[in-house]
Amino acid sequence: MKLSEISRFLNGEMQSAEDIEISGPAKIESAQKGQITFLANPKYHAYVEQTKASAVIIDDRVQTVPIPSIKVKDAYVSFVKLLKLFSPAEKKYVTGISDQAYIDKSALIASTANIGPFVYIGPGVKVGENTTLYPGVVLLKNVIIGSDCILYPNVSIREECVVGNRVILHNGCVIGSDGFGFAPTATGYEKIPQLGKVIIEDDVEIGANTTIDRATLGETIIKKGTKLDNLIQIAHNVVIGEHTVIAAQSGIAGSTEVGNNVTIAAQVGIVGHIKIGSHAIVAAQSGVSKAVQEKTIVFGSPALPISQQKRIEASLRHLPEFHKRIKELEKEIEE
Amino acid sequence: MKLSEISRFLNGEMQSAEDIEISGPAKIESAQKGQITFLANPKYHAYVEQTKASAVIIDDRVQTVPIPSIKVKDAYVSFVKLLKLFSPAEKKYVTGISDQAYIDKSALIASTANIGPFVYIGPGVKVGENTTLYPGVVLLKNVIIGSDCILYPNVSIREECVVGNRVILHNGCVIGSDGFGFAPTATGYEKIPQLGKVIIEDDVEIGANTTIDRATLGETIIKKGTKLDNLIQIAHNVVIGEHTVIAAQSGIAGSTEVGNNVTIAAQVGIVGHIKIGSHAIVAAQSGVSKAVQEKTIVFGSPALPISQQKRIEASLRHLPEFHKRIKELEKEIEE
Amino acid sequence: MKLSEISRFLNGEMQSAEDIEISGPAKIESAQKGQITFLANPKYHAYVEQTKASAVIIDDRVQTVPIPSIKVKDAYVSFVKLLKLFSPAEKKYVTGISDQAYIDKSALIASTANIGPFVYIGPGVKVGENTTLYPGVVLLKNVIIGSDCILYPNVSIREECVVGNRVILHNGCVIGSDGFGFAPTATGYEKIPQLGKVIIEDDVEIGANTTIDRATLGETIIKKGTKLDNLIQIAHNVVIGEHTVIAAQSGIAGSTEVGNNVTIAAQVGIVGHIKIGSHAIVAAQSGVSKAVQEKTIVFGSPALPISQQKRIEASLRHLPEFHKRIKELEKEIEE
Repeated sequence: MKLSEISRFLNGEMQSAEDIEISGPAKIESAQKGQITFLANPKYHAYVEQTKASAVIIDDRVQTVPIPSIKVKDAYVSFVKLLKLFSPAEKKYVTGISDQAYIDKSALIASTANIGPFVYIGPGVKVGENTTLYPGVVLLKNVIIGSDCILYPNVSIREECVVGNRVILHNGCVIGSDGFGFAPTATGYEKIPQLGKVIIEDDVEIGANTTIDRATLGETIIKKGTKLDNLIQIAHNVVIGEHTVIAAQSGIAGSTEVGNNVTIAAQVGIVGHIKIGSHAIVAAQSGVSKAVQEKTIVFGSPALPISQQKRIEASLRHLPEFHKRIKELEKEIEE
Repeated sequence: MKLSEISRFLNGEMQSAEDIEISGPAKIESAQKGQITFLANPKYHAYVEQTKASAVIIDDRVQTVPIPSIKVKDAYVSFVKLLKLFSPAEKKYVTGISDQAYIDKSALIASTANIGPFVYIGPGVKVGENTTLYPGVVLLKNVIIGSDCILYPNVSIREECVVGNRVILHNGCVIGSDGFGFAPTATGYEKIPQLGKVIIEDDVEIGANTTIDRATLGETIIKKGTKLDNLIQIAHNVVIGEHTVIAAQSGIAGSTEVGNNVTIAAQVGIVGHIKIGSHAIVAAQSGVSKAVQEKTIVFGSPALPISQQKRIEASLRHLPEFHKRIKELEKEIEE
Repeated sequence: MKLSEISRFLNGEMQSAEDIEISGPAKIESAQKGQITFLANPKYHAYVEQTKASAVIIDDRVQTVPIPSIKVKDAYVSFVKLLKLFSPAEKKYVTGISDQAYIDKSALIASTANIGPFVYIGPGVKVGENTTLYPGVVLLKNVIIGSDCILYPNVSIREECVVGNRVILHNGCVIGSDGFGFAPTATGYEKIPQLGKVIIEDDVEIGANTTIDRATLGETIIKKGTKLDNLIQIAHNVVIGEHTVIAAQSGIAGSTEVGNNVTIAAQVGIVGHIKIGSHAIVAAQSGVSKAVQEKTIVFGSPALPISQQKRIEASLRHLPEFHKRIKELEKEIEE
């Protein structure tokens, strides 16, 4: 693709007369001859002196660069657009319906769905238009999957769960496993039946090997546009709002409600039966034991408002010296 | 089912003349007309004023309620019983032995076992009566599975491991992967062969995507009645006692022994080669670096007796102000 | 095998005239008659008085023992050698190429590879000599696997990823899932295409249910000889050096570079875009938010040099009493 074509595609302004051929996008440190990169942060300006890239996308934040460039409104946003342009048109590596899949006679499969070998589709299951099920996917009784979804290898979904449209489920993630509920008795723990289900709304993405438990009664819900990373645990009856992001290895205990547009960083733990307000932010490795108000940032274990936690942390580093100073004061007083 | 029948089933006392038809159990907040709910905690009494449920199970802790009720000894316990009553009689979504499974000629499969498509059963494997293996389950050489077990989709068990009766293994859990053992050498790490196995005793339940490593020599053991949640790591040669519960994302390092009736909350880490006494409780996100005595509650990272840890935590919030007060004291003394 | 043969194999010195028959190696606590064990640490000398083992491997650190023994240079290293000697010669539980596997016509499979039932091998895939793929393994388009690898059940690898020689991938691990990258827009998060791949070099071992995301652009790399435990998260564009070990449930965020011979203990979190120097050590449950220098040991959340963190921790236990002492000082000053 010509640099001028890319410039037109991005609604940009070409800063070079030379209309070179571009093979694809790359990061500034690892770009090769023929590739195009981007520079959005002046802090990284040194990289552009050394890059092997043949062109760079820039915006107002960046001054002159020593290689052909395209000036746009937001270099990063334009680069993401370019990534899409250069994505393989079809990332479907299985097409059609394999005769090595098991499809129950009572299942309803859209004619445009793609189903790989060794996929199991149980009784009453529905699979929507243009949805792709990779090898090893298992859908138990009455599962409903919408249109334009991708279920990567070895995803498994237990009975009765419902998945919306344009949902992406990464390898090995588990939807609808039993909630962790046991009643203590004189002879040991008795299993509490887990009769609910999981609902995953439109445009949700769920990471590899993440687990989402079904509700004891009712539903565990992941609302539209929400994105979950890998190895996350979502317990029974949790409700996660719209357009919320949760980073890897975080866990949310039973019946907690997370609002819309919340950001939860990695390795966070949140106790059960609390509410996390919309637009709240929970910093990495926090342990949240109480409700978090809307638009609040919390941090630490136990989590506190971030400014308070930062002050405590700063003081902590002086703690050993406090000890000495208290001792000295005591001595002086005694004297 | 009539309310009077439910009352009789629960050995309860009907508090209403009207014998309505009940469609099933539900949570008090989300119950619909025709459903029955429960109220065990007077704190939640307000809910019963608003619930759409047609009846409620109560006990002595709760006074008058505005809808038909059944009085029992323990409302929560009775509600769990009711959940079971309304559970689908048979939660087996695969029945019989699929001809799309691979079953080695030397395997011994009970005639009442259910084996789904794409299940792999290796040489010397034994599967007990009434055990169900969902699609994608893999049992390598000589694995033994008892009776009345459920192995959900994509569970995999390595060679020689042994599983008792009435065991439930949730989707994607891994039993018998190699312990993490390497001997450092001049040219890199050398793998220490992992020759042991895993033994899972009767009535154990193991969560989705949890991993249990085989012993280097001897056995990693999960004793009877113990319940493990999702995404837990159990390292080589760990022994977990009877009727112990471990919540999601906790990890136990090699050769540690956990007693009976222990409670380990979520995201806990326990170092190797220590003992956790019976009836001990480890609070969430704790890091346990030393042995824990019987019936002790520990908390924090590093974990301390909970009362001590709580005092430290309370003081921590005052830490920044300590700093100021010490400074002032120093000034005053100087003066 | 005779004790004298074992002694010769270990280049040891037999300390007993009696040349008994040895059935295999065992731990000192659980050894049975006929087995051989080892004693490397004088601290555990008491065990050798009680062991049922018929022989013991010792070295200079241990004095007289009451059972037949072999003296070697390093008892532990010799014992590991013995474990290998007694390992089953072939731990391949599937052999040949199953006709219940799916192998695309364009795939290149070495004639000595072993491929179990229900393995999916996509277009353009290459599998090297003597590599074993257990049931449920899924390799999407153009994946390349070297020689002498073992891919345990239900491992799945996304398109274009490359795996070296003598690599071991444990059950359920995921290679090449999408990096967690989304651009916020007015209407929600927009997915950033993840166009890169994962490269796993020679002699790497990756634990059960561990997830390694593909790069946004370029490569996520695990270099030769590195060992990863179970349930670890490696984000997009991370580079991990040679001969590094990472224990279970740790997570490394996007674009971070870990050096060679680094040791990362369990449940550690490392933020994105930083460098961990070679030979550094990160203690368990640490949260690393800044670069770590070579050969440094860090600990805590946020992670600090270990000596500093240990001093803080020691002071922390006195914190509640500081409070009292400050109060008293203030009183006395006032008086």
